[in-house]
Amino acid sequence: MLDSALRVKLENVKKLIRRNAKVPLEKVLAKLHPADIALIVSNLSDLDRKKIWSFITDRSRVAEIILEMDDVDIVRIFEEMDPKMAASLLSEMESDDASYVLRLIPKEKQQSFLQYISKDELLDVEELLHYPEDSAGAIMNTAYFAMHSDTTVKEATRLLHKAEHLEMVFYLYVIDDEKRLVGVLSLRQLILNPPEKKLSEVMITDVVSVSVMDKEDYVADLVEKYDLLALPVVDEHHRLCGIITVDDVIDIIRDKASEDIYTMAGVKQEEMMFDNQPLKIARIRLPWLLITFVGELFAGFVITYFQGRVQDFLVFSTFMPIVMAMGGNVGSQSATIIIRGAALGRIDLSNVFKVVFREVRVGAVMGIVIGVLLGIVAPLWNGDVRIGVIVGTAIFFAMLFASFTGAFVPIVLMKMKLDPAVASTPFITAFNDVTGLTIYFTVSMLLLMIL
Amino acid sequence: MLDSALRVKLENVKKLIRRNAKVPLEKVLAKLHPADIALIVSNLSDLDRKKIWSFITDRSRVAEIILEMDDVDIVRIFEEMDPKMAASLLSEMESDDASYVLRLIPKEKQQSFLQYISKDELLDVEELLHYPEDSAGAIMNTAYFAMHSDTTVKEATRLLHKAEHLEMVFYLYVIDDEKRLVGVLSLRQLILNPPEKKLSEVMITDVVSVSVMDKEDYVADLVEKYDLLALPVVDEHHRLCGIITVDDVIDIIRDKASEDIYTMAGVKQEEMMFDNQPLKIARIRLPWLLITFVGELFAGFVITYFQGRVQDFLVFSTFMPIVMAMGGNVGSQSATIIIRGAALGRIDLSNVFKVVFREVRVGAVMGIVIGVLLGIVAPLWNGDVRIGVIVGTAIFFAMLFASFTGAFVPIVLMKMKLDPAVASTPFITAFNDVTGLTIYFTVSMLLLMIL
Repeated sequence: MLDSALRVKLENVKKLIRRNAKVPLEKVLAKLHPADIALIVSNLSDLDRKKIWSFITDRSRVAEIILEMDDVDIVRIFEEMDPKMAASLLSEMESDDASYVLRLIPKEKQQSFLQYISKDELLDVEELLHYPEDSAGAIMNTAYFAMHSDTTVKEATRLLHKAEHLEMVFYLYVIDDEKRLVGVLSLRQLILNPPEKKLSEVMITDVVSVSVMDKEDYVADLVEKYDLLALPVVDEHHRLCGIITVDDVIDIIRDKASEDIYTMAGVKQEEMMFDNQPLKIARIRLPWLLITFVGELFAGFVITYFQGRVQDFLVFSTFMPIVMAMGGNVGSQSATIIIRGAALGRIDLSNVFKVVFREVRVGAVMGIVIGVLLGIVAPLWNGDVRIGVIVGTAIFFAMLFASFTGAFVPIVLMKMKLDPAVASTPFITAFNDVTGLTIYFTVSMLLLMIL
Repeated sequence: MLDSALRVKLENVKKLIRRNAKVPLEKVLAKLHPADIALIVSNLSDLDRKKIWSFITDRSRVAEIILEMDDVDIVRIFEEMDPKMAASLLSEMESDDASYVLRLIPKEKQQSFLQYISKDELLDVEELLHYPEDSAGAIMNTAYFAMHSDTTVKEATRLLHKAEHLEMVFYLYVIDDEKRLVGVLSLRQLILNPPEKKLSEVMITDVVSVSVMDKEDYVADLVEKYDLLALPVVDEHHRLCGIITVDDVIDIIRDKASEDIYTMAGVKQEEMMFDNQPLKIARIRLPWLLITFVGELFAGFVITYFQGRVQDFLVFSTFMPIVMAMGGNVGSQSATIIIRGAALGRIDLSNVFKVVFREVRVGAVMGIVIGVLLGIVAPLWNGDVRIGVIVGTAIFFAMLFASFTGAFVPIVLMKMKLDPAVASTPFITAFNDVTGLTIYFTVSMLLLMIL
């Protein structure tokens, strides 16, 4: 969101665009960080947005600004752009950024851009595109700072001067004759060591690295665990291929968290791409609803079944929403604790019993509280105390079972190597409704016979 | 979670502890990263866990290991520890880490530790404890690398040699006579500039900084937006007080995402502290259930009201679970998109109408699909085609309204400066059940009159 300072600047930019005030506008934009310009651009009207680009003549700056934008906006900009212009912007980007952008764009368009890119750069970008999405190889930056182990500290410092085009340099990677990664040195260590020493004498040989095929989640976990600023990526022969920097890891972590949140509610990040296309968004969300729909049909059967069998069915039907909502909530609470706990590495699947047992006990406590409450409230409906005892007892068992399902289903999915967030929520909702109503009416039926 | 390599090491450590093999165990532990030892320790039995500490004699290393552990484990360790030992471990930590640990520990215990800490260190730690939790002041590190603007590049490089105790040095902060922050220089720029130049000549004066009272979320946003490795923290006179490094920001981002996920399901991160205390966990989760409980009582009233008014009530009651589940799902989908979109800064509250309108259109599309489906399925129950037309139409309107509520409620909460994640889900669930059932029975009643 725009903070107040940026909002003022946005209004200023709007005014200058409308007045076509080239020089003042260029001055304002030159002083702003690309990330801020990106925010301003995304808040302009379509017309102003097209105009603003003509005031930023430096292509590398345009590329920087575009990279700070949301995926939706990046796609929109490149889809509207002349292929030659697009190719020249892509050439301005680091290889990892260029391949990131290209992955967002439909295959046909991709080709029309690539034909205008010079062979050298194409090689780098195509190599990255070739790695599976979400792999370390796909997101690594191939422009890094590496030197042979025989280099002296003095020589390395001199070479650093020449590497001014490289961004985010904090480590110097040390390689051997075969380009294999053999050591690492922080810039600070470079400063602190005597100039005549060889890198092989001063480097740390115990380098944390990942393989090009490792998953980006694993990369993020390593960077977080060891507090790294960058992680070298190597191929199957341990040759250095690229680096992944901490700023990219922050994006991975945020995206992964968003994905978990979206998945648990049956929506998707990609929706953002279809801002004005309700049909496409509905198509993304419907599968989730359909699973629930089928599940709830069974709940319908349960109701039909008990209608002829439970005395005073109408009274009991009044509390169905409470039974279903409590079961649903208790189940989703347990499921959330398990799913997020697993994502954070806090739940050990070797100790399943302990986790499920804890959730069931919590469910039991909450079941007693809600059971007693409902037991007190229910007789107010028709003055029959028996009804209170019955529905209170019934909802207790329904909640107890819901806490078990809520904990158990995600664990089973994880054991089956499936993403627990995907199937858990709609499945648990529907399943808990069916079992909850079955337990509710069965207990009610049995207690009615006894009391 | 433990990866396979670490699992092997864990088994090895277990064996060595049982054999009391001091020397080999010390060797194994010396080679491991503190983060890995922390993982191993948290996977040991209580008995082994107590023993392992006697094999790590270096206190600063013990402090490092403890800091890598989960909050739950940190609290457990310090609560069992002798206050003198605790104080000596806290003294080994950076001031931000020490105050982080102290914040986790109950006030009484805190005091028993603090009396054994030397006055100098106490001053730093108490200053940090004094800032509100979640503020930049509370999480900043007071050990940073800063120099006067008159210092030469050569002198700065020499001083860097002396600052070996400082961790995570990537920027050199430049201050004036009053300790006010006036510039910044990366280590790389330090290397690249001629030794005789003054820092004031080579520094960047446009420094991004935060105030001690700024929220940690804001800090995280800035670091992410500008791809920073560290952010200086200043007081109201713009004096440099500390720095916040990117590794801490990663923790903030992960914690914030967890908090959002937990809040939306009515659970809390703190639960982890009460692993074996179902009563305490239930107390955390119950408020959420109680809100829903009260809401669903109203759903009960709605059902009672329509029981005497809708013909064939029993047939219609069969589809209540579908109506409620569809409304609930559609509502939570819309709410999730809005809540996460706002957290990521993707939803602009100045354009509320557009967002709500999109969600309602998506709800309409899904309502039509589910309505038609239910219209086809429902007559299978009792062979009456009219029932299909009626429940199909009714569920369409219920879903349409649910998508509106799902989008509108979080926006209203945000406009009221409340956290939309807190109240949204239980409130939306209950509210959608009540309105969904009301719409469903009203439409059914009206259509029954016409058809």
